[in-house]
Amino acid sequence: MTTRAARPGRRPGGPDTRGEILRAARESFADKGFSATSLRGIAREAGVDAALVHHYFDSKDELFIESMALPVDPRQIAARIMDGPPEELGRRIATVFLGVWESPDGQQRMKAIFRSVVSSDAVARIMREGVGQMIIQPVSRSLDAPDAHLRVSLAATQLIGVAMARYLVELEPVASTDLTTLIDRLAPVLQLHLTG
Amino acid sequence: MTTRAARPGRRPGGPDTRGEILRAARESFADKGFSATSLRGIAREAGVDAALVHHYFDSKDELFIESMALPVDPRQIAARIMDGPPEELGRRIATVFLGVWESPDGQQRMKAIFRSVVSSDAVARIMREGVGQMIIQPVSRSLDAPDAHLRVSLAATQLIGVAMARYLVELEPVASTDLTTLIDRLAPVLQLHLTG
Repeated sequence: MTTRAARPGRRPGGPDTRGEILRAARESFADKGFSATSLRGIAREAGVDAALVHHYFDSKDELFIESMALPVDPRQIAARIMDGPPEELGRRIATVFLGVWESPDGQQRMKAIFRSVVSSDAVARIMREGVGQMIIQPVSRSLDAPDAHLRVSLAATQLIGVAMARYLVELEPVASTDLTTLIDRLAPVLQLHLTG
Repeated sequence: MTTRAARPGRRPGGPDTRGEILRAARESFADKGFSATSLRGIAREAGVDAALVHHYFDSKDELFIESMALPVDPRQIAARIMDGPPEELGRRIATVFLGVWESPDGQQRMKAIFRSVVSSDAVARIMREGVGQMIIQPVSRSLDAPDAHLRVSLAATQLIGVAMARYLVELEPVASTDLTTLIDRLAPVLQLHLTG
């Protein structure tokens, strides 16, 4: 994840301006959703100038990533998933997704996100919109099929379920199966969802 | 689900003996797990005679079903899944599982169970043991393959994920896809997990 220090030569605002902007972003994402949230609106909510929001954050995407404490940048995930032949898409998706969960920091953050999504409708809305726009939509466009959006979303349900079972519920034998075997099992199933 | 009135001609105990037995069962399942819990131990915890536990509940399975407020009896689910040709197992699993979620009462209860599983390690343990013994194990035995347990568990992850996406996160287009289309998509994927 790109954590960025304040740029030199610009006014950094109050002592926790960055935190206030993040709080305003979280609230706006929760109230209005991802699409209807603007950097200008976040600035207004945080009581700062829009230029100050740009001082700390490049884009709405970045505000989403930081305010949700994502362990990785979804845009990079999407790029890695799409970088290769379409017939290996299932394997790349399994490898990239489980790679995030297998790192201790990634797993801790993803667990917290999953728990928030399940317990809070607002967080569920933010996550489905943010991940939808940054991962599911670009991958769907790359598939070039009329039902691509449904295909990629159903592949996502397989990933959500395996993460739930392996890392949150610790359902055996899924929880202790070695990563290579798990990817070998998931790759053809994901591929069937995507291009079968 | 089989909700049973007290049998005639036996001593029903105190005014909320049944509730006390259920509370003791929940605690024992959470503390010791499903396997190590006995009706005798539950009776001791509830401060009643073991015969009184049998007066209200036929078996440990039934105590599990009632204490978790399951919308259906997992043993009936397993029986319905296994009743038919193996090459249509994926379709039967999708049909039976989504059938529970598509009824208003079933969906409400299943959502509550999913939320408890994600937020409580104790509930996660009870559910994975109970559902493991009552559904995953019998279905695995019916498959007659050395890796059957992993296969059935991975099919379960697909079901968990589609339930999360459709009913809890309301991820589109999975959430609003008609049931027939959804079953048509899931059936071959589940079949690949199980016998592919």
